[in-house]
Amino acid sequence: MRWSEIDTVPCPVAQAMSVIGDAWTMLIVRDALRGSTRFDEFQRSTRASRAVVAERLTRLVHHGVMERKQYEAHPPRHEYQLTARGRALQPVLMVMAHWSETQLPKPTRSTGRRHTTCGHAFAPVVTCSDCGEPVTHETITYDRPRGSAGRA
Amino acid sequence: MRWSEIDTVPCPVAQAMSVIGDAWTMLIVRDALRGSTRFDEFQRSTRASRAVVAERLTRLVHHGVMERKQYEAHPPRHEYQLTARGRALQPVLMVMAHWSETQLPKPTRSTGRRHTTCGHAFAPVVTCSDCGEPVTHETITYDRPRGSAGRA
Repeated sequence: MRWSEIDTVPCPVAQAMSVIGDAWTMLIVRDALRGSTRFDEFQRSTRASRAVVAERLTRLVHHGVMERKQYEAHPPRHEYQLTARGRALQPVLMVMAHWSETQLPKPTRSTGRRHTTCGHAFAPVVTCSDCGEPVTHETITYDRPRGSAGRA
Repeated sequence: MRWSEIDTVPCPVAQAMSVIGDAWTMLIVRDALRGSTRFDEFQRSTRASRAVVAERLTRLVHHGVMERKQYEAHPPRHEYQLTARGRALQPVLMVMAHWSETQLPKPTRSTGRRHTTCGHAFAPVVTCSDCGEPVTHETITYDRPRGSAGRA
């Protein structure tokens, strides 16, 4: 199978990767979640080429993760805003950053995240919607057989 | 900046993407989290080329996400097992799959995940380690300024 066919696979991980399974894309989404909206902000922050940033932003708009909006008429200028679908990526990025902070050997600066509900610095904890307890690799099973991309 | 330099950026999202920021890699990790250990299993499931699977497995071993172990001496055969670092990716994949299931328009089969602590099917909920309440885009702030890859 070629990567261009990945979105034909009925697996949610494969589907997610067909939209955000590209590292530059994730960095653009990271910046957008922190408030960046302008092409130049994304380009300066990611230090990717303008062509790469333009292509990734177009894909994110195509997939409904961002919206392109005109914010100035003369000359016409546009910015990129996250949609609800895009804002829903916050937990994905948070949990990914937490894995990196706690599991990888290279030091990274802390993301300095704070939960406005309680006002505290925090780590993200993935819990069960039913019992509220943490879910880890050791406390998860799958009802259907493991295996092929077509069945996973 | 070229992608090969991404692991020089002191941002945890960038660091994570330098290890797992590749879609085939994520599918291999997905299969490993569900119990796959053999080269042929990964290749059959992902339907990537043998060269792609081999290259991704080598990288995962290099980054300490998987270990390559001999399980048969004559002829010599090896399998790939997740390390603790690799098993810690379970919440990342879970939250990514949940985003896909709830946010993307294409129907995917449910992953059929069940929490062994309580025995129920569940959705992953990302919560605050301090107060235990859910964390969303609307309830998170960052102590340091948003922005460049170097500071994010």
